[in-house]
Amino acid sequence: MPELRRDPILNRYVIIAENRAARPGAEVGWAMTTDAESTAKLVGTAHPTCPFCPGNEHETPDEILALRGDATQQNQPGWRVRVVPNKYPALERDVVPPPHRGTDGPQSLFFQASPAVGAHEVIIDTPRHVTTVGALRDLEFAELLSVVQSRLLALREDPRLKHALVFKNVGRAGGASIEHVHTQLMATDFVPSLVVEELRSARAFFAEHRQCLFCRMIAAEREQGVRVVAESAGYLAICPYASRFAYELWILPKRHASHFESIPAADVSDLASFTRHSIATIEQLSQPTAYNFFLHSNPFDSVAIEHYHWHIEVVPRLTIAAGYEWGSGCAINPVSPEAAAAVLRALLG
Amino acid sequence: MPELRRDPILNRYVIIAENRAARPGAEVGWAMTTDAESTAKLVGTAHPTCPFCPGNEHETPDEILALRGDATQQNQPGWRVRVVPNKYPALERDVVPPPHRGTDGPQSLFFQASPAVGAHEVIIDTPRHVTTVGALRDLEFAELLSVVQSRLLALREDPRLKHALVFKNVGRAGGASIEHVHTQLMATDFVPSLVVEELRSARAFFAEHRQCLFCRMIAAEREQGVRVVAESAGYLAICPYASRFAYELWILPKRHASHFESIPAADVSDLASFTRHSIATIEQLSQPTAYNFFLHSNPFDSVAIEHYHWHIEVVPRLTIAAGYEWGSGCAINPVSPEAAAAVLRALLG
Repeated sequence: MPELRRDPILNRYVIIAENRAARPGAEVGWAMTTDAESTAKLVGTAHPTCPFCPGNEHETPDEILALRGDATQQNQPGWRVRVVPNKYPALERDVVPPPHRGTDGPQSLFFQASPAVGAHEVIIDTPRHVTTVGALRDLEFAELLSVVQSRLLALREDPRLKHALVFKNVGRAGGASIEHVHTQLMATDFVPSLVVEELRSARAFFAEHRQCLFCRMIAAEREQGVRVVAESAGYLAICPYASRFAYELWILPKRHASHFESIPAADVSDLASFTRHSIATIEQLSQPTAYNFFLHSNPFDSVAIEHYHWHIEVVPRLTIAAGYEWGSGCAINPVSPEAAAAVLRALLG
Repeated sequence: MPELRRDPILNRYVIIAENRAARPGAEVGWAMTTDAESTAKLVGTAHPTCPFCPGNEHETPDEILALRGDATQQNQPGWRVRVVPNKYPALERDVVPPPHRGTDGPQSLFFQASPAVGAHEVIIDTPRHVTTVGALRDLEFAELLSVVQSRLLALREDPRLKHALVFKNVGRAGGASIEHVHTQLMATDFVPSLVVEELRSARAFFAEHRQCLFCRMIAAEREQGVRVVAESAGYLAICPYASRFAYELWILPKRHASHFESIPAADVSDLASFTRHSIATIEQLSQPTAYNFFLHSNPFDSVAIEHYHWHIEVVPRLTIAAGYEWGSGCAINPVSPEAAAAVLRALLG
């Protein structure tokens, strides 16, 4: 059972999940691909040993949700997007709270733990064995985003859950243990510290300026232009001013919205195409590609708020965060976001 | 000129240092070693192309400080520990502050930058071409620590500098670009966010309990014992309760002290031997080894305080921080600190 521990010094949570040491690739490294497998990847045909490919549905826990053809059956081929519980979850949904441990004695000041309650789900983006977002079709990415919305709307009905982070690990250096392109979702009974910090800043900014911090930043970035990578009817892609990572890319909706799960279906198709093309440029920066993608959306505790603004952050893993970064919390980025935006604009063509 | 940018959303600093993209290993990867080079490493003989080996002093900027034999000359062989400016600094000591930029207009809300002022120094631990702390001698490590103290005492005389982080990147996955074992120091005109958070917690704990948070934690860890790796007359090594990394190891002085640079010379030899042996166990966990080491010490703004307690943190880089960690600030650790401490105790023998 994964355990949630409170860091008494940094006031943040750590999940101790010993079950995750057993997952594929966690110890033995990234499986080498043979030429035959590389060919399969290009055309997207089924990969016999991939647990995310059609025909291997029994390799995953039973599906929670799938978009699938009318005449097909659960946990059988015929799906287009498929959601399953993570086989090596860092969170457990079905836990009985342990007996109250008491708060007496000096140890309880430091040693506070509880079961790591929540949902840890894997969303398989496509049945085709492809390894990049660039290899997806716009329609596939749009269906993926609508499935993410469905899961968020379902999970927020669980009164224990406070927030969900949707993310992607792509490439070995991005922390992926399975190469078939997929997305993950972790819904927790706490709001994670980075989201708490974003919310605190956004609330303070709104209190002072009566305007959303992100809406104001979007206006300032469009005015300057130099960090803008692309713009569609509804979305803006920028390399943020204080980028922590080389070629860090954010995608922001131009219209204010706090919760991703509430955006209208009509907006999803623009978002899907825009995001997919933006990420495809990141995927061209290195071979093999490696990056993380995450969606910052408001906690589940409200329906719509004025001061927070959902957005996507894509952080390429081209450099290694080392001692200074881990010891200080201050990033060193060798590529200015202005130079990064120029490169990404050129790649977009 | 590296630039310090303030993140308007997370309220932390980012250093944009485009000059660092040019450093060895930053783009082309870790140089492969030949068998001849491996042999040289074992015996610690000079490596003809290593900029940190004796005879190659001209490959680095001029030395700031060195422990060296009486009949030897600056920037020539004969040194035992040698301090030089980082050739690709993320901070610059000699900068003229730019003219005040004004705070009018909407952009200044978001786009605040200043020159990244500070010292970025490299301390070459030994003239011998060895790649691990375990291959150092106790006396070498003790001389290294006393040189670190000297540099901190010198840098705190610069009224612009507020704090210094001393750290090591060991192994390619630890972010090292040069394998010859070395230490770095970055002194900044701000206190980095993780140190600010530690100080805030420590201050709050002291206000409530009239006792140092770390002293109390040391007592609780010794009482439980299960996360204790080793103990000497003056020091305690533990895997902390809320370890973010597998096999994370902290070394804490048992006697309260806020500033590392002020500990008496008599304590340094116990610390050197204890730390070196503790780190040598971390170096046995994987081949090639990869970890970061950092020293958290109080900012320069005081001489001794009751509520903060300097300490060393060693974070092995056995797993990859991925999308959830970078997006949430919440770590997932697949090895409990209790299990990790048992393994490290066994390795210590």
